[in-house]
Amino acid sequence: MITRLEKLLYRLQSQHACLNWAFAEIEGTPGIVFELGLGLGRTFSHLRAHLPERDIYVFERQVHSYPDCTPEERQLVIGDLAETLPRMAAQHAGEVCLVNSDVGSFDKAQNAVMGAIVSGAVGPALAPGALVLSDLPLDIPGTRALPLPAGAHEDRFYLYRKDNRS
Amino acid sequence: MITRLEKLLYRLQSQHACLNWAFAEIEGTPGIVFELGLGLGRTFSHLRAHLPERDIYVFERQVHSYPDCTPEERQLVIGDLAETLPRMAAQHAGEVCLVNSDVGSFDKAQNAVMGAIVSGAVGPALAPGALVLSDLPLDIPGTRALPLPAGAHEDRFYLYRKDNRS
Repeated sequence: MITRLEKLLYRLQSQHACLNWAFAEIEGTPGIVFELGLGLGRTFSHLRAHLPERDIYVFERQVHSYPDCTPEERQLVIGDLAETLPRMAAQHAGEVCLVNSDVGSFDKAQNAVMGAIVSGAVGPALAPGALVLSDLPLDIPGTRALPLPAGAHEDRFYLYRKDNRS
Repeated sequence: MITRLEKLLYRLQSQHACLNWAFAEIEGTPGIVFELGLGLGRTFSHLRAHLPERDIYVFERQVHSYPDCTPEERQLVIGDLAETLPRMAAQHAGEVCLVNSDVGSFDKAQNAVMGAIVSGAVGPALAPGALVLSDLPLDIPGTRALPLPAGAHEDRFYLYRKDNRS
């Protein structure tokens, strides 16, 4: 049996492996970044360190991140994802090259709701070939699941790519 | 530079590697287990799964763990560690074969206080050869630092052994 300690560990290992793979993958490609869910800001600190030149928009209901991991005002999109994501996806249609979606919790019913919101709303934002990393399985029209890079654990993290024909 | 995501990831990898090493190390040795800091209960879920026959006492100020990771009433020691740890260490003098101490936070001043409390109070509980795993560096009289097992990262987690002469 996998313990809760291992669930978190394997998810973080997978997220770390997928992010570092994605950073190399999008190098030289123009585009902005969406981070869905700020939490304590750990992943934001990783995105900011590795993508210093990119515009990163961070979606969160209420900011409670570590002070040294808190996005600047202009980077924050505060509100309910069901409202903010469709709006920002329309505003930045086809501009996003990388999405990191980290909106899961231990509440399975809530996870199904969040997965449906992201799946239904993020699509228009994606540039051709854009990558979507997610802690929840997603079903985004026009994308396909990719095999995970080395170091990632199946079923702990999910990776999708937008088709090149947009 | 190491990001906050990596800090957490490397700490969890180290804790997981140290715990699994320790489980093998104490196999066949009698003794009870102290867990200092319950948090969401992830490490407790790992201890409980791997040490089903052992008495585990979990020290926490206020329980806010996942329902499926919450210790039973008889396993919980509720209160301020500065008060509960000396009392329980006297009550179980020389009976503890494994301590997992997970009381650090992002607050450096608080970490120094917590490290001093654990270092000063846990000693009497330790059986000869007992292992102490910690997310903070400790200085427990009568113990020495051990090299970390494979898979653990230096300076992300700490491992001590009580001298065999008690």
